Amino acid sequence: MTFTTHTIDREKLKRLADVAVKVGLNLQPGQELVMTAPVEALPLVREITEAAYEAGASLVTPLLSDDEVTLARYRSGTSDGFDTAPGWLYEGMAQAFEKGAARLAIKGDDPALLAGRNPDHVGRAAKAMSAASRPALNHIANFRINWNIVSWPGLAWARQVFPHLAPEAAQAALADAIFKASRVDQGGAVEAWRAHNATLAERAAWLNGNRFDALHYTGPGTDLTIGLADGHAWVGGETEARNGVICTPNIPTEEVFTTPHAERADGYVRATKPLSYQGTLIEEIEVRFEGGRITEARAASGENVFRTLLDNDEGARRLGEVALVPHRSPISDTGLLFYNTLFDENAASHIALGQCYAECFEDKTLSKEEVAQRGGNSSIIHVDWMIGSAEIDIDGITADGTRVPVMRSGGWAQG
Amino acid sequence: MTFTTHTIDREKLKRLADVAVKVGLNLQPGQELVMTAPVEALPLVREITEAAYEAGASLVTPLLSDDEVTLARYRSGTSDGFDTAPGWLYEGMAQAFEKGAARLAIKGDDPALLAGRNPDHVGRAAKAMSAASRPALNHIANFRINWNIVSWPGLAWARQVFPHLAPEAAQAALADAIFKASRVDQGGAVEAWRAHNATLAERAAWLNGNRFDALHYTGPGTDLTIGLADGHAWVGGETEARNGVICTPNIPTEEVFTTPHAERADGYVRATKPLSYQGTLIEEIEVRFEGGRITEARAASGENVFRTLLDNDEGARRLGEVALVPHRSPISDTGLLFYNTLFDENAASHIALGQCYAECFEDKTLSKEEVAQRGGNSSIIHVDWMIGSAEIDIDGITADGTRVPVMRSGGWAQG
Repeated sequence: MTFTTHTIDREKLKRLADVAVKVGLNLQPGQELVMTAPVEALPLVREITEAAYEAGASLVTPLLSDDEVTLARYRSGTSDGFDTAPGWLYEGMAQAFEKGAARLAIKGDDPALLAGRNPDHVGRAAKAMSAASRPALNHIANFRINWNIVSWPGLAWARQVFPHLAPEAAQAALADAIFKASRVDQGGAVEAWRAHNATLAERAAWLNGNRFDALHYTGPGTDLTIGLADGHAWVGGETEARNGVICTPNIPTEEVFTTPHAERADGYVRATKPLSYQGTLIEEIEVRFEGGRITEARAASGENVFRTLLDNDEGARRLGEVALVPHRSPISDTGLLFYNTLFDENAASHIALGQCYAECFEDKTLSKEEVAQRGGNSSIIHVDWMIGSAEIDIDGITADGTRVPVMRSGGWAQG
Repeated sequence: MTFTTHTIDREKLKRLADVAVKVGLNLQPGQELVMTAPVEALPLVREITEAAYEAGASLVTPLLSDDEVTLARYRSGTSDGFDTAPGWLYEGMAQAFEKGAARLAIKGDDPALLAGRNPDHVGRAAKAMSAASRPALNHIANFRINWNIVSWPGLAWARQVFPHLAPEAAQAALADAIFKASRVDQGGAVEAWRAHNATLAERAAWLNGNRFDALHYTGPGTDLTIGLADGHAWVGGETEARNGVICTPNIPTEEVFTTPHAERADGYVRATKPLSYQGTLIEEIEVRFEGGRITEARAASGENVFRTLLDNDEGARRLGEVALVPHRSPISDTGLLFYNTLFDENAASHIALGQCYAECFEDKTLSKEEVAQRGGNSSIIHVDWMIGSAEIDIDGITADGTRVPVMRSGGWAQG
């Protein structure tokens, strides 16, 4: 086994770690940090650990996963075992969050890891994992704590994004793209992020000022009206978590987003990018919504996995997030399909199936029941998929029926 | 970062994984496995994972640690943080064990990792870790579950054992020594382990037949009488855990051991090998026991860390284990000082400070209180150190004062 990472710029890696800790997490002195990462991302894990201790972390605990360990299960595991997930680990993490820990996730997994594996095993393992991780996921979804996601240019991922390059060159190219998209390719990255967050906050303020009741999407294969939750609030960039810490959960982020109404989506929509879900690439998704619920679903590939995803629970067929992203940004300017939601969702407007974010309401102290009363969806899953492109127009519709252009040809309609 | 492991024989690594899963754990079909390991040991983690799934494991969850992450804390962490330990993780592990998971630990850490770090920070971190890990450790110490420890030839460890060799050669040499000591250097390793376990069982039966009340150790710097716990039982090789699974906790193992009486150790003893404790090497330990308690303690180096160890709690100054090991074995025949308790303790008779093993009683169903009534010690620590050598004689003393030679010049006195 050889990990070769000398092609990755150490200075930019340090900048990414710095942005993750200071802007992404805004880690507080004395705060504990729980970090998940693929083992391949160890160089970034180490830089983030150092930055976290420099910021005053009391303890940093990385939990490292390994694709080969995952594959061994599909190669040699017994079928009975696939309903088992490490619930004990997620309950431990939930306990850490209850005691004040922050959460950082490094993503960089092989997007096609489980392609070709037994779909029944893949689906059951994913469902068991979703249920088991819920105690921990709830703290994230409800923004009880400050959290952050950043990316590592994993080798298998890099080879998928740059199939024509040699492995090391592909990894170097993906590293460059991640650094650009994450706005750490130049010095002063922390300051640049503060300015970018201010722009996103202005955009969210404009949307909130309009108090739209619904959004109407039109474009090729798409004519969809999405009702917004009662008392919803648009959010973008930085967010004040319920523990009082202002964090920027996604690095990179270009989106402003809110909570749709679980029972008010009608029409049809075509995905504009493939969805990489638990190691399977789901391509050319087309669905129909009626009364907020997906009643028809197709995909050119990975349709079985997509159907298993929809069957997780009742909320898996309904929307938990609607996000607006301009078609031009440092991410979309790379011109790449990343096969990774964190990037691809920030290159295009998107929606998510499943659990909604309780933070996307004007009243940040709503109970679970109050969120549901206002139309907030509930599910064991939260899966984003892209429906934006340069061919999509979006209108905002107010309660009295007034239409206001929100996006035209994938760009913001209002300057 | 480059991990080079092509110097390590893949076939022998597979054999070690096979012995760990089939003999060490005796992993049962459908059983979950929680594995801790240094990240450097990933090749062995992967082989064990594969072997565990082949044996029918429902789920294998490795928890990987990284020395560089540990060092970052000592380099950049704030002093206040060192009383924090990941209790949430150990409570999660305890929950896994309660639900039936087995436990495997791969050791191979840098024995001198924390040498030269702030001893106050080292001591406080170790104490916090001992307390935090107790919920999980209890399942191990009380043999509620099947568990196993095996070793990986970590690079830093290898360089300490073979300081005159180049790094890769040192790692290859340590790998060879581990394979020999673990009896996997030849084919038929699983069968060889079954035969070795039978020999250890015979030795334990002889000791149990004699029902010694105490052992008397004499040698250079040593004149020590250790009383044995009431109703104690000698154990060696394989053990039936309380979950009904017969496992062999240590690979390698050459010892037969039992629980001493916490209040009946008198005299003085000199350690015959250095003790590597939480990254500090403690050399030339000399202590005096009175009424089971250490009343005087010295060490030529690492004395501060040793004193912090003794001050963990009242039970840290009393004995929790006494183990007999012949001076000749595949381990001691390597002629190496491994700076690693798992090996060095199996090359020489030893004692352990701290928590006793509840399994080392004739009655395997004793409550915590009943163990204490019989003289079983209780502590948040369990630390072995070596007091055997070719110059040590041991007599068994029965209740009526009869002396029976047990070991002479470090070898078994009885054939």
